[in-house]
Amino acid sequence: MVISGRTDLAAEAHRLWRESVPEAGALPGVRAAGETLEGLSVTAVDILNEEGERALGKPRGRYFELFLPSLFPQRGPDLERAVGALAVLIRRCLPQPLPSSVLVAALGNPDVTPDALGPLCAGQVLVTRHLQTDPQFRNLRPVALCRPGVLGTSGVESAFQVQTLCRALRPGCVLAVDALAGAEPGALCRCVQVSDTGIAPGSGVGNDREALSPATLGVPVAALGVPTVIDAAALSPESRLAGFFVTPRYIDSAVRQYARLLGYAINAALQEGLSVEEMEQLLD
Amino acid sequence: MVISGRTDLAAEAHRLWRESVPEAGALPGVRAAGETLEGLSVTAVDILNEEGERALGKPRGRYFELFLPSLFPQRGPDLERAVGALAVLIRRCLPQPLPSSVLVAALGNPDVTPDALGPLCAGQVLVTRHLQTDPQFRNLRPVALCRPGVLGTSGVESAFQVQTLCRALRPGCVLAVDALAGAEPGALCRCVQVSDTGIAPGSGVGNDREALSPATLGVPVAALGVPTVIDAAALSPESRLAGFFVTPRYIDSAVRQYARLLGYAINAALQEGLSVEEMEQLLD
Amino acid sequence: MVISGRTDLAAEAHRLWRESVPEAGALPGVRAAGETLEGLSVTAVDILNEEGERALGKPRGRYFELFLPSLFPQRGPDLERAVGALAVLIRRCLPQPLPSSVLVAALGNPDVTPDALGPLCAGQVLVTRHLQTDPQFRNLRPVALCRPGVLGTSGVESAFQVQTLCRALRPGCVLAVDALAGAEPGALCRCVQVSDTGIAPGSGVGNDREALSPATLGVPVAALGVPTVIDAAALSPESRLAGFFVTPRYIDSAVRQYARLLGYAINAALQEGLSVEEMEQLLD
Amino acid sequence: MVISGRTDLAAEAHRLWRESVPEAGALPGVRAAGETLEGLSVTAVDILNEEGERALGKPRGRYFELFLPSLFPQRGPDLERAVGALAVLIRRCLPQPLPSSVLVAALGNPDVTPDALGPLCAGQVLVTRHLQTDPQFRNLRPVALCRPGVLGTSGVESAFQVQTLCRALRPGCVLAVDALAGAEPGALCRCVQVSDTGIAPGSGVGNDREALSPATLGVPVAALGVPTVIDAAALSPESRLAGFFVTPRYIDSAVRQYARLLGYAINAALQEGLSVEEMEQLLD
Repeated sequence: MVISGRTDLAAEAHRLWRESVPEAGALPGVRAAGETLEGLSVTAVDILNEEGERALGKPRGRYFELFLPSLFPQRGPDLERAVGALAVLIRRCLPQPLPSSVLVAALGNPDVTPDALGPLCAGQVLVTRHLQTDPQFRNLRPVALCRPGVLGTSGVESAFQVQTLCRALRPGCVLAVDALAGAEPGALCRCVQVSDTGIAPGSGVGNDREALSPATLGVPVAALGVPTVIDAAALSPESRLAGFFVTPRYIDSAVRQYARLLGYAINAALQEGLSVEEMEQLLD
Repeated sequence: MVISGRTDLAAEAHRLWRESVPEAGALPGVRAAGETLEGLSVTAVDILNEEGERALGKPRGRYFELFLPSLFPQRGPDLERAVGALAVLIRRCLPQPLPSSVLVAALGNPDVTPDALGPLCAGQVLVTRHLQTDPQFRNLRPVALCRPGVLGTSGVESAFQVQTLCRALRPGCVLAVDALAGAEPGALCRCVQVSDTGIAPGSGVGNDREALSPATLGVPVAALGVPTVIDAAALSPESRLAGFFVTPRYIDSAVRQYARLLGYAINAALQEGLSVEEMEQLLD
Repeated sequence: MVISGRTDLAAEAHRLWRESVPEAGALPGVRAAGETLEGLSVTAVDILNEEGERALGKPRGRYFELFLPSLFPQRGPDLERAVGALAVLIRRCLPQPLPSSVLVAALGNPDVTPDALGPLCAGQVLVTRHLQTDPQFRNLRPVALCRPGVLGTSGVESAFQVQTLCRALRPGCVLAVDALAGAEPGALCRCVQVSDTGIAPGSGVGNDREALSPATLGVPVAALGVPTVIDAAALSPESRLAGFFVTPRYIDSAVRQYARLLGYAINAALQEGLSVEEMEQLLD
Repeated sequence: MVISGRTDLAAEAHRLWRESVPEAGALPGVRAAGETLEGLSVTAVDILNEEGERALGKPRGRYFELFLPSLFPQRGPDLERAVGALAVLIRRCLPQPLPSSVLVAALGNPDVTPDALGPLCAGQVLVTRHLQTDPQFRNLRPVALCRPGVLGTSGVESAFQVQTLCRALRPGCVLAVDALAGAEPGALCRCVQVSDTGIAPGSGVGNDREALSPATLGVPVAALGVPTVIDAAALSPESRLAGFFVTPRYIDSAVRQYARLLGYAINAALQEGLSVEEMEQLLD
């Protein structure tokens, strides 16, 4: 992720716009709506055209924001509801019917706590592409997983690595997971964004430059992310805050719990009918 | 460490006081002075009496603050200078001549990145108490090390654990290492505090209550710490920032590098004449 | 654990004796019996007197060995059955009624894979001693946990650390967890031993010398362990095998899975009526 | 690595052949010779033709085996000598003059201790491909690094991943690092093999199938490896040992130390004139 003093969340950008221009009507080129899924609050923001892109600073497409009641989605009914709701949103951002094979790209830096969401999520995804000849797993959709790491430890842009592997494997779609930068403390580690636009350049905490988008990958791309940091300079105009993060005090735990939630939601979206209990047994 | 909207650094508290009351002369009960060690800037603050204790919010005693030119004290001459300067300050805060045995208490939560300074430092300390019968190590001062963990994972106050072990081992002194909370972004992961007052209650990021002090342990106690976080609520009066941290973006690396610096400085202070090169071989 | 060319498992020692002396009747001073718990096979060996102690090389007391059908007790009904059976055996090795507070001692070296059973198990134990004032947790028995580490990283015998803390906390009993050395490949990471004799000196992989026993701790001590290694020298008389281990290929996974099983079984034994699902939520 | 009851070391295969046929003269198709580099013993084995390939069970090419005096190459003169000797052997197995860019492939499973050599080594390699526009690093040869992980966690053969990236980056050569299986306890974690043949199928501890060879990658490939395990079934004909490893007791430390040695040797071979001290500063 690249911290940039702005938010990677479309719904948050929309909220901030409404707060800054309270007298305004609807934002041209943007459609926003709320709904409830599994008892959880969802905001949908559609960016419809260039006017909307400029207004919210993101490419056109669909963005969903799922709000959670806790920083730490614990095992049990709460986790199951969040998994169920997220699986619905992920499927809405993927082609229908679901492609017969999927590549999951787990982005971010495993050595920077708030950026480790993708790498930690990788361990919770059911990787099945190599199991297709095993009758026990024949009903599982083939899923491959790529952990490109970061430029500093591979010498290669992570987007380039994903593109290269994508061209070689030719999956039906890509699902990218990455940590995001937010703007409001109240949204940090409290919501998940799902979109059908991929990962735009300049998202997140890291420094990788190129996009993972339908245009660069040649297949549909959905993206899943959680805001884990705020640029401290965004909270206060002091220049002495450049290079500083704001994170929840228990970011280490929150990132682990969200990584599990996202991994389980990916499994639920891609492997229809699989319960949390069943995936936990398969992941063990 | 307990984040409390204030600083654990005596020299920083003194700086903030001078900034807030620029017309004032000297602070009663406090004596501050600067010096240079190994080319590095040191501020010494002596809290002399109750008046000074109230003014700076810390117990009376000596506090040194060593400033470093970088967030990441890399191997090489920079690290050696910092180790040398810190070793001098540590010895000033311990009884002279040095006691014949020492207990190092590595405080903090290994699972909370900015609070992991103590646990990470533990791996860089030469533990020698059990090697006294080995002629090869006979010249090394006996050092024992205690990692009490945190209340949530042991069920026992860390101070109580250190007290109990201290009573059983009867070392000549205790050296406590812990992460600190600071107030100024410019000091975060840029300085080390050494004091002869131990760890006061309410220091740091965690929630452990009791002090590690000469009074509670019955032996002299020196403390070593690095400010790794600022309470976000201290930067801005917004209540919505309660529970949020400000840290340097590369806090994971910075904590590891400072943990090494502190461990090496402890070795240099306790094992006279040992070079960085020699201790790296012994630690390997 | 100290690998010593012999087995830490009483039931295995008994099996090996019967294989070596097939014509023999019962071993004097030893009583062995089988039973089934939750569908799993249990062997009970009671060492009754000095004759039995000499014959099997272990102190008198009760030893249970629970055999599992897999190296990797996965989540689901298999794990629940194993947790249930082990909880029964743990309670049989503790005083009845259960003491009102318990100290768990997680022994072993976190940096040596097959010896990391204790440290990994520590993360799966519900630590509750500090929660007694919280009404939500009032029904949980107070449990404290001690991770003494190993002599090489603390400078203090781990048994001495546990004794010291035990004297200070005065729990009603101690439950020690440690990796064991076995003799038969087929038992490695396939069984759990529970005994009421504590940890005898020279057990396990490490080098810590003193015992954790009712005699040294002054309270009842139950011990839980899993054989994770065989001394390679025990398999073949070649001196060139001194210093080598035999382990299952997937020892890293097996140790993690067994650590979870043991932690859950401790929770089930000490917190009556708590289901696996409930403890997973509390541990999250 | 794939444990297969045989050795991945050409020099060891040659030694075992000579022990089994002591009366024989030279092995047809094989040339073996000894030398000393930096005071360390090196065995060179050249497999010259098909006859030699059949005899030693490895593809034709050059194999060097460097023997070390210790399981733990510690910092200091010992490490520097080993780094220097290995750098010479690596350069002998790469094209001359050295290609202007290199791809390092770090193979193996980070979650299986004796197979983690490659992943741990990755952290010790100077990755420089992305730094070419920075004048400070202009003198460093561009090095990219690939950690393909294992089939079970990515769903993609690691050889396929390296091939794909190699085709996209077009480096002048590939340097592959992997853990090996050996046959003699005395060679385990005591030697390093360097060859110009790549990684043959069935090497190592894992299960990845395809080769990384000049034929499959289209560029010269050197391979670096350390024997970390012996198939227990190879030590004793008992079927009950299938699925068991023999490793040195301190395999966790040994793998970490060898990973550092190999990383440093790669740096010394690829970045001419760089000292161990300089690379430690750059890696910090």
